[in-house]
Amino acid sequence: MSAYPQSITNLIRHIARLPGIGEKTAERLALHILRGSRQDAEQLAQAIVDIKTRTRLCQECFGLSDQPVCRICADPTRQTGQLCVVEQPGDMMAIDKSGAYAGRYFILGGTLSPMNGIGPDQIRIRPLLDLIRRTRVTEVIVATSTSVEGEATADFLAGRLRSLSIAATRIASGVPMGGDLKFVDQVTLKKAMEARHAV
Amino acid sequence: MSAYPQSITNLIRHIARLPGIGEKTAERLALHILRGSRQDAEQLAQAIVDIKTRTRLCQECFGLSDQPVCRICADPTRQTGQLCVVEQPGDMMAIDKSGAYAGRYFILGGTLSPMNGIGPDQIRIRPLLDLIRRTRVTEVIVATSTSVEGEATADFLAGRLRSLSIAATRIASGVPMGGDLKFVDQVTLKKAMEARHAV
Repeated sequence: MSAYPQSITNLIRHIARLPGIGEKTAERLALHILRGSRQDAEQLAQAIVDIKTRTRLCQECFGLSDQPVCRICADPTRQTGQLCVVEQPGDMMAIDKSGAYAGRYFILGGTLSPMNGIGPDQIRIRPLLDLIRRTRVTEVIVATSTSVEGEATADFLAGRLRSLSIAATRIASGVPMGGDLKFVDQVTLKKAMEARHAV
Repeated sequence: MSAYPQSITNLIRHIARLPGIGEKTAERLALHILRGSRQDAEQLAQAIVDIKTRTRLCQECFGLSDQPVCRICADPTRQTGQLCVVEQPGDMMAIDKSGAYAGRYFILGGTLSPMNGIGPDQIRIRPLLDLIRRTRVTEVIVATSTSVEGEATADFLAGRLRSLSIAATRIASGVPMGGDLKFVDQVTLKKAMEARHAV
């Protein structure tokens, strides 16, 4: 690589810092950008600058947004009686893509993890309760992950919501659709068995 | 994806246009850039712009360079009696990384391919012969690829060099080091057998 001029080694070095991109791939991408048009390169560079300068957190749900209030929170057709609580913006995107939910979201920004010093004040428990108090939410769907921390956070939230007389529900756990039973872990199978229902 | 704000979908779209990068990877990289520091994002963007604005072709060897003459051609410690002719800048980098050659290079910019209308005037045969005439080159190592076109180009060059009384050599073909014989194609095995030597 040392034989490449400075501008090329420099770009390779920057691309290779991205996660999951090795030096060979970085070299291939840098040479592709070099071969491409100047306009393409400038647009890519501008998009990179823009994502840092334009993206902020929505002041309602703390999701990613270009505006003070994100598209979902600003959408008047969204149901306001339900609120889906997730850990991170990516979780919100995944649920929204599924099309199974048409309400609003709230991003906790993590899970409770006392071992790592993360208590209720380190994630957005208080902003969530504030939001629930000032809006007409009747059901909070807790869609934190099914990890130990995610489950503990869901339990903690359910307790707080009960004291506010708000219904708390938890997304169902079970065997993934299309999943081969023999590749599903035992904890998931146990959950799926316990949550069995009449067909 | 539609739930992402414009600045994020825009960057994902631009990254996904790069070769070998799918939409999922593009999303992962965009979110990584978003989470990273503003300085990192700006440096990456600047490196992308720089590769297009600063990189040009060396006026001696037609390799990639930031300067009118590239680092290898400008290096006074390089042997000047030999010249290694390759198809593309990447080939030059690969040979130079091997450490087996300490002379200068010349980038042909392709191979002869009459079927596709590429004759001697469409690649840099004339600039190569001009360079050989005005420098003290005594051996030209033809390191074009071992494809049909690469071999034909090597034969053509050897003929032209003979008429100038310049020694032309060809890089050896054979079984790749560390290669399992049963995975090596028959043409390569035939070449390797023909070029066998005493040990």
